Amino acid sequence: MRAEILSIGTELLLGQIVDTNANYLAQQLPPLGLDLFYVSQVGDNLTRLAAAFRQAVDRSDVIITSGGLGPTEDDLTREAIADVFGEQPRVVPELEAHLREFFTRRGRPMPERNVKQATLIPSASVLPNPVGTAPGWWVERDGTVIASMPGVPHEMHKMWEEQVQPRLAQRISGGAIVSRILKLIGIGESNAEEVVGDLTHSINPTLATYAKPDGIHLRLTAKAATRAEAEALLDAFEPRVRARVHEWLYGTESDTLPLVVGAMLRERGLKLATAESATGGQLASLITEAPGASDYFVAGYVVYSAQAKRALGVSAETLERHGTVAQATTQALAAAARQRAGADVAVATTGNAGPGASEDKPVGVLHVVVDLDGHQLCSETRYSTTRTEYKRRGALDALYLLWRELKRDP
Amino acid sequence: MRAEILSIGTELLLGQIVDTNANYLAQQLPPLGLDLFYVSQVGDNLTRLAAAFRQAVDRSDVIITSGGLGPTEDDLTREAIADVFGEQPRVVPELEAHLREFFTRRGRPMPERNVKQATLIPSASVLPNPVGTAPGWWVERDGTVIASMPGVPHEMHKMWEEQVQPRLAQRISGGAIVSRILKLIGIGESNAEEVVGDLTHSINPTLATYAKPDGIHLRLTAKAATRAEAEALLDAFEPRVRARVHEWLYGTESDTLPLVVGAMLRERGLKLATAESATGGQLASLITEAPGASDYFVAGYVVYSAQAKRALGVSAETLERHGTVAQATTQALAAAARQRAGADVAVATTGNAGPGASEDKPVGVLHVVVDLDGHQLCSETRYSTTRTEYKRRGALDALYLLWRELKRDP
Repeated sequence: MRAEILSIGTELLLGQIVDTNANYLAQQLPPLGLDLFYVSQVGDNLTRLAAAFRQAVDRSDVIITSGGLGPTEDDLTREAIADVFGEQPRVVPELEAHLREFFTRRGRPMPERNVKQATLIPSASVLPNPVGTAPGWWVERDGTVIASMPGVPHEMHKMWEEQVQPRLAQRISGGAIVSRILKLIGIGESNAEEVVGDLTHSINPTLATYAKPDGIHLRLTAKAATRAEAEALLDAFEPRVRARVHEWLYGTESDTLPLVVGAMLRERGLKLATAESATGGQLASLITEAPGASDYFVAGYVVYSAQAKRALGVSAETLERHGTVAQATTQALAAAARQRAGADVAVATTGNAGPGASEDKPVGVLHVVVDLDGHQLCSETRYSTTRTEYKRRGALDALYLLWRELKRDP
Repeated sequence: MRAEILSIGTELLLGQIVDTNANYLAQQLPPLGLDLFYVSQVGDNLTRLAAAFRQAVDRSDVIITSGGLGPTEDDLTREAIADVFGEQPRVVPELEAHLREFFTRRGRPMPERNVKQATLIPSASVLPNPVGTAPGWWVERDGTVIASMPGVPHEMHKMWEEQVQPRLAQRISGGAIVSRILKLIGIGESNAEEVVGDLTHSINPTLATYAKPDGIHLRLTAKAATRAEAEALLDAFEPRVRARVHEWLYGTESDTLPLVVGAMLRERGLKLATAESATGGQLASLITEAPGASDYFVAGYVVYSAQAKRALGVSAETLERHGTVAQATTQALAAAARQRAGADVAVATTGNAGPGASEDKPVGVLHVVVDLDGHQLCSETRYSTTRTEYKRRGALDALYLLWRELKRDP
């Protein structure tokens, strides 16, 4: 079936916001068996918006929109759909009551213009919005489906997951379509594809790989008559996938590497310290993405200057002999940070984020050392990227090395 | 004039990449006097791509595209344009020679399929690409302009700035259109609009405000017969704008706050230290975005735990009396960091990034203290956002406070 996405709002055409909604939705469609052929951004103009809907109805089976459901005169998604189908929006008393209640709970009166958020046309039913004032519209007419959701990303994600995805799955497959995500780190996309090998040819469940900023995601998707049957198919398939990728598998669904590493440290009662030169604080910042990181993250040192490395406890001799960018110096930093902080494990980084070379060390080199009770694990990598991206990837790779060491030594 | 953007590539429809090119281009069009009515993402399919071009030619005066100019069979932008205009692409010998030279300089032979990157149709001229193999196409036919650029963002930006923007300016205004950016921090968008007031009604140059992740940008744009005349108009206008916003003005064009603060510290020979609780390393990471930060950034401490705050030199009494999230504790942290690092100036943060409350301190509160030679500047802010965004904005606000203090005390 042919799917089409319309992202609605003049702010998109002025470049004030990036259309991340279309990207989110585009990723959600393949597991449903929907082919996405058209994505457009349309402004808050009734003529052009109605024309976009008319074209979409002509060429696509499923039209998914975000934006234009607010209460102002510029919010025209409802009006455009009504116009295309020649139907009249009418206020639905129960929706209006529900909306007034939303405002009452927040202790303020409902502006009268919000009443238009309580309207429907005969071909539309309501998609509840538990986290905002704008309900969505689910429209079915002449074999075409339109699912219109709010533009605020977290409202849209929730409505997609709870309302639109299950309805589309039911409509398309006559049953349920369920996905699970496995997250890998320390492996590239093409290697990951090689490792899962023939499993990518599985028909039901299917298996797809995605390269993401935090590693490789594997998406396992099953179709069945009921949700329970789809889950059962996944229960049988998932262990086969896990067996291939266990070496790199750090989590599922909403897991993140900082959360996973944090849980390992907390569980084992290990205290963590960092000493960062090359990553300049980015590693500490990544670690503290996990709420409650103060349980295990006892101290971070950003030792950008040679003076700061000395002050932490790296000897003048080490610095002189090896320079500030070197494995030996990184090892000394990790040991010093662990001792200074009274921690059980420390991670240290040195390197050259560029843009210029320094000390004859090439641009892009990164040394990471994990020191766990005096046992040290070292890595050297070379990145060819911007300074910002070097720091981001370097911090992630440093945390990956820590994860590997914690996993190796349970 | 009506403008339209086509972003070309199946990876966009699969959600593998976010279309940041359309966002970049959308921001570039208003200063040229172009109204952007349509933005679409189209896959690598000749029929659908040609249909998208045909529709664009029917309804828009200027069509700007990115992507689909590579050497593979999936790169179909040239073929689609040729199809719409019924023209034949032919290899241009000079372009082919130039392309072969590009590969020779990199020490490898040119794959034969790359020859198609050396083709043009009669209505097209070439847009040179000094940083990649894919030249762009500038097509003029029947009053319509098509500017096709590569999809790789840094190649596209360069081609836009050096080739497409000046050609469009010449075509639209018969002369040159020149923009300058002034960057503000510590002021919101609506306040900034109030402060510049009547200057936003100026016709030539024009003045527009943009809310960006690093503050408010003001764009001053002048049109004139020549570039020199446009620059002269800006030379006269810019001081009037600066006079209104000097309090918040930290830079122009490619300046960033880390670069600007770094230059102030370097010039005055001041050494900087940080002590971060709430921002968890993000402030150090922001400071080290500036190359050469080791010249002035002597030490960063990430003191997420009470233990680490004690170890840095905050007294048990202070922690007990005020808690870990408090102005007094932040002041003690800043003083301790400055002394421990032997620095002239220190910035400290405490707060609660959420999601849970702690110590009865509300979620989202952030204390920042700048300590310059013992003179302390304090701020307290409350954010209502995610943990990640709290840290990002908190680090920026902390750096802003440092910038204000350095500016105040030259």
